[in-house]
Amino acid sequence: MNKYPKQFLGHDFLLESELALRLYSNIKDLPIIDYHCHLDPAEIALNKRFGNITQAWLGGDHYKWRLMRANGVAEEFITGNASDYDKFYEWARTVEDLVGSALYHWSHLELRRFLGYEKTLSRSTAAECYEHCNNIMQNPNFDVWNILSKFNVELLCTTDDPCDTLEWHRKTADSGISTTVLPTFRPGRLLAVSSGFAEYIDKLGEVGGIKVTDFNSLKAVISTRVEFFHQNGCRLADVPLEPPVYADCTDEEADVIFRKALAGKLEGSEEAKLRTAIFTTMGRMFAVKGWAMQLHINALRNNNAYMHAKVGNDAGYDSILDTPLALPLNGLLNSLARGGDLPKTILYSLNPNDDDIIGTIAGNFQSGPMRGKMQHGAAWWFNDTKTGMEKQMQSLANTGMLARFVGMLTDSRSFLSYVRHEYFRRIMANHLANYVMRGEFPDDFNKLSEIASGIAYYNAKEYFGF
Amino acid sequence: MNKYPKQFLGHDFLLESELALRLYSNIKDLPIIDYHCHLDPAEIALNKRFGNITQAWLGGDHYKWRLMRANGVAEEFITGNASDYDKFYEWARTVEDLVGSALYHWSHLELRRFLGYEKTLSRSTAAECYEHCNNIMQNPNFDVWNILSKFNVELLCTTDDPCDTLEWHRKTADSGISTTVLPTFRPGRLLAVSSGFAEYIDKLGEVGGIKVTDFNSLKAVISTRVEFFHQNGCRLADVPLEPPVYADCTDEEADVIFRKALAGKLEGSEEAKLRTAIFTTMGRMFAVKGWAMQLHINALRNNNAYMHAKVGNDAGYDSILDTPLALPLNGLLNSLARGGDLPKTILYSLNPNDDDIIGTIAGNFQSGPMRGKMQHGAAWWFNDTKTGMEKQMQSLANTGMLARFVGMLTDSRSFLSYVRHEYFRRIMANHLANYVMRGEFPDDFNKLSEIASGIAYYNAKEYFGF
Amino acid sequence: MNKYPKQFLGHDFLLESELALRLYSNIKDLPIIDYHCHLDPAEIALNKRFGNITQAWLGGDHYKWRLMRANGVAEEFITGNASDYDKFYEWARTVEDLVGSALYHWSHLELRRFLGYEKTLSRSTAAECYEHCNNIMQNPNFDVWNILSKFNVELLCTTDDPCDTLEWHRKTADSGISTTVLPTFRPGRLLAVSSGFAEYIDKLGEVGGIKVTDFNSLKAVISTRVEFFHQNGCRLADVPLEPPVYADCTDEEADVIFRKALAGKLEGSEEAKLRTAIFTTMGRMFAVKGWAMQLHINALRNNNAYMHAKVGNDAGYDSILDTPLALPLNGLLNSLARGGDLPKTILYSLNPNDDDIIGTIAGNFQSGPMRGKMQHGAAWWFNDTKTGMEKQMQSLANTGMLARFVGMLTDSRSFLSYVRHEYFRRIMANHLANYVMRGEFPDDFNKLSEIASGIAYYNAKEYFGF
Repeated sequence: MNKYPKQFLGHDFLLESELALRLYSNIKDLPIIDYHCHLDPAEIALNKRFGNITQAWLGGDHYKWRLMRANGVAEEFITGNASDYDKFYEWARTVEDLVGSALYHWSHLELRRFLGYEKTLSRSTAAECYEHCNNIMQNPNFDVWNILSKFNVELLCTTDDPCDTLEWHRKTADSGISTTVLPTFRPGRLLAVSSGFAEYIDKLGEVGGIKVTDFNSLKAVISTRVEFFHQNGCRLADVPLEPPVYADCTDEEADVIFRKALAGKLEGSEEAKLRTAIFTTMGRMFAVKGWAMQLHINALRNNNAYMHAKVGNDAGYDSILDTPLALPLNGLLNSLARGGDLPKTILYSLNPNDDDIIGTIAGNFQSGPMRGKMQHGAAWWFNDTKTGMEKQMQSLANTGMLARFVGMLTDSRSFLSYVRHEYFRRIMANHLANYVMRGEFPDDFNKLSEIASGIAYYNAKEYFGF
Repeated sequence: MNKYPKQFLGHDFLLESELALRLYSNIKDLPIIDYHCHLDPAEIALNKRFGNITQAWLGGDHYKWRLMRANGVAEEFITGNASDYDKFYEWARTVEDLVGSALYHWSHLELRRFLGYEKTLSRSTAAECYEHCNNIMQNPNFDVWNILSKFNVELLCTTDDPCDTLEWHRKTADSGISTTVLPTFRPGRLLAVSSGFAEYIDKLGEVGGIKVTDFNSLKAVISTRVEFFHQNGCRLADVPLEPPVYADCTDEEADVIFRKALAGKLEGSEEAKLRTAIFTTMGRMFAVKGWAMQLHINALRNNNAYMHAKVGNDAGYDSILDTPLALPLNGLLNSLARGGDLPKTILYSLNPNDDDIIGTIAGNFQSGPMRGKMQHGAAWWFNDTKTGMEKQMQSLANTGMLARFVGMLTDSRSFLSYVRHEYFRRIMANHLANYVMRGEFPDDFNKLSEIASGIAYYNAKEYFGF
Repeated sequence: MNKYPKQFLGHDFLLESELALRLYSNIKDLPIIDYHCHLDPAEIALNKRFGNITQAWLGGDHYKWRLMRANGVAEEFITGNASDYDKFYEWARTVEDLVGSALYHWSHLELRRFLGYEKTLSRSTAAECYEHCNNIMQNPNFDVWNILSKFNVELLCTTDDPCDTLEWHRKTADSGISTTVLPTFRPGRLLAVSSGFAEYIDKLGEVGGIKVTDFNSLKAVISTRVEFFHQNGCRLADVPLEPPVYADCTDEEADVIFRKALAGKLEGSEEAKLRTAIFTTMGRMFAVKGWAMQLHINALRNNNAYMHAKVGNDAGYDSILDTPLALPLNGLLNSLARGGDLPKTILYSLNPNDDDIIGTIAGNFQSGPMRGKMQHGAAWWFNDTKTGMEKQMQSLANTGMLARFVGMLTDSRSFLSYVRHEYFRRIMANHLANYVMRGEFPDDFNKLSEIASGIAYYNAKEYFGF
């Protein structure tokens, strides 16, 4: 019977063997390639500073908001007009009870690594911690560029609408910042063919300088925007499939249906057909450009209409969608592979039940000479937890090739969340070491270290061509 | 390599660390609030005594029946006319092979805690055990009230049809029993709009003193019954969603469809619409009364028509249903939340794949000032196992706030099943201690103990307002 | 903190306690009943010899092909015209990175147990290993019969189309081989009612000597083939449900729909109805013969049309299907059970999310006097991994009776894959021992050993009546 607990957040945090510790030591200082995040390009370009810990920590973090609501905190202290300290205090009294939550770990890693606050956060330390953090944040060096530099972020990719002018990206590129900041082409609104579609297409046509009246001119304008993004350094697309749908569609059909969509008159399976046609059209362009195509699947957003009306999108009212995906996802990928036009692709599903299914779908479209062309993406959003990451890595090891995994991304809106790479690297190093500890892989440290540093850094570098 | 097995059912049963043992010691004597069970109110009111162990143990326990059938036992020894000893013997020869089953643990906990029989049950001990138990059961104190008192059951909630007169509850309330016994409003037959609906509505109207001819009079009679249950101490509803369906429905539509349902003439989506309308109607009433609404989702009952004809409902022919629930369940909850009418709600799905999905749906409707208003209910029925409970708690920790969990219920038809609270408390204490042992939560015994005793008892007391 | 890794593939491989080691020692030499595989009857009859390790190992093994593609190996080195050594080398450079994969374990077990090669395979040992293995394979005793004998394969069941003449099985039976080799009735093409159906029915009629023009003559010819298979030793059927469908269908309807199917004119729900009718027709025949009916569910095949056109079926382009199965599978089984015609049945789903659902469906149709009549089959294909097997056994222990499990099968096309029984037996022994080590089952070695040897061998012998 075990007698002694491990120290919370000690040097061996999440590492269960000396081998894991040694392995982690070997990879912890590798640079970070954060190939998918939701940081604001303007805040990077302007090298934002933070007023206080509440603004930096609680301003837009719907992960924290959900837990505060679960703890009975009134909305006034979450998205409302309460004072910054009162909001911080409400979070502090929530966090002290977050046993078993990744938010407990993230929060304390952020306090320690960024702000040097070493105690745990609770009602009793809230005032002290608030003062401590705000003092640190007054330091002239506490700005975005220094944060990125301190965390050794070599490169990051934001997430941008095809209509975006990318002006902040160009300003950032000229700014002298040590981190490379690239845009990602995210055509979410292009695929939302039955909601505000005509307005969006108008805007896209305007930005792209092409009057869009039929499917051919739609193709032309998308191509223009892909080219524009490419010239601005974009090497990834990010396509939401919420839910995944697939229905074979010829260009002729697509043309007829597209006109109906502009008129707001889609019927029956036409939405699925048009989404498929736009998806394959774009996919082919991504393949030509050598981009990686990310597919984010099975999220269900804005489920609380009352609160959506009050506080808008991305406010903590989203959940996992459980639509079956084997048929539509294989269908979409096959429709591109058929013509040799399938770009390298990263598959993420918000539904953790999809892990093995995704792994076996990825396997259907692997092909050389690229190593790991089809990727099962890192545990996403609600799955971005210790058990979620372990499950994703075990699934990948079972159904594919874990050693080819391109690894972690933050997917975050917060500059403080770079500690999630540490969190991931610890869990990943421990996961790999456990195979050896259990006698399931040879005790060959060089090989293990090569695999671990691949997943931490080198695989992504090779995969994206950075 | 581990050398020494732990003793079966020792004092440290299911506890893997000294911390877990200490934590369990701190909570094991807390009273039990069994807020959902299927005990028979008449048997409580009449302070039932048990003829012998077979009648108490095997009389209505379809969990045991399923395993006896899996072991090839003939139906004669299960629901048939074999002698009580022969039935007991057939169970004994089944139980001895139940490695890995919660039934192995439940059965032996029941023998030890209730009946003082310390050996394991098998073919070779069957005769001795049978005699031992029957002797104990002859003791004049071996009755329902003493069992409930011995297990420190402060309060229990039965499950009752809206038509029920609750006479047994009133008799129990006046009886001097030390346990509080409350009814639960379970409108299963009200939602079964395409099976025996007209007859049921007639009966409901009769009991409620209202002639039900349209949707308005249906509302009136439901309101009457909710009021009647409330006056008799009811504070929970229990709504089966088998399967979950949601289809928006105005009151005008509901009225038309309701009349068709009475005539047995529902078509197409009308069943979904009518069920939605009745659900939201009731949900609003529960909210007004401050009741907790339990939703039991994704059970599929009576799958073996031949055996159903022979032995009826609840005889061990039920299974997990795998209907996707993210869309309908979000839809149903949103339809109530929209108007501020969502009662506190506990979500259970029989499909363990729904755990994380349920957790993220619950998060969409959390709101203060209540702590943990939306609950992911304890592992239910087929999931009421060690691994099932651990999975549910880990999912809750990942997607919500484990510390706010209202904890265990027996969901049982048997008075002997109160040992399941011990089983749960051990697993829960161990689960919490493991976070500390692994260095994932600070070694703060007071905090841990506060969380554990909350889940064991105090959270439920606060949540239900008992 | 753990200091010392276990040795890779040591004598205690996958065994975590001395009890597990002792238990495994007790069962490791039991004979093998491989009741489901895809070995080629002709190769058995002709006592095939292998040209070299590449031909034996990589010739048809789509598990390996998938991983080579994931590693970026060009198709030329997989299914193409590269030299045998070059193909072997490409596999060697893939295998060295397969941390966490069952293929890593299978490959090294095969090298050690069959070929006496004790090092690990990698780029640096590829040449040496290739030469070593090919030398061993030149040994005159290195043939199929000796392999089966060395691995103590008492009996194996191939998988055969109803049209098969079974001539190779008859030759094998007369050959003096020490292993019993039986056919399995696999009516996959009979259920593929909308693809090449008329041609297949013609062929079946020809083989069966009956002109098939209506549903009655279809029944007659199926009955003839079942009888023929039975006379040739067949005791199992293997029915693919991809996806599972159920739609009640009278014989009169079936007759009308069958004629439409022959004309290629199925509409709407007719495919589901006809498949249900053929399924129940066959199921009744299996029950009469006392056969075991295997149902393989939720596989989705040939998803990459481009590669399918190039390399055909079973080439590594298959994935898990995620169609809900509780309703159709209960429906199909109930339609047989209704008339007392349900054969003993083994349920496999390729979707690991179905584990608990399958367990609870199996429980609905258990009935004596047979022990374990309804089986949750061993972890299949993509789930045939350490974690997959553990998950299946835990699910079975939770929802049914693990001790009655009929255990492992190879499901393989390769004679070298008999090491998978060792792999399974180690994992199973360890899984059982863990219950005792954790104090969840009494430390009764005789009982544990009885259960373990049942799962390893005796349960299958009893179940299939071999």
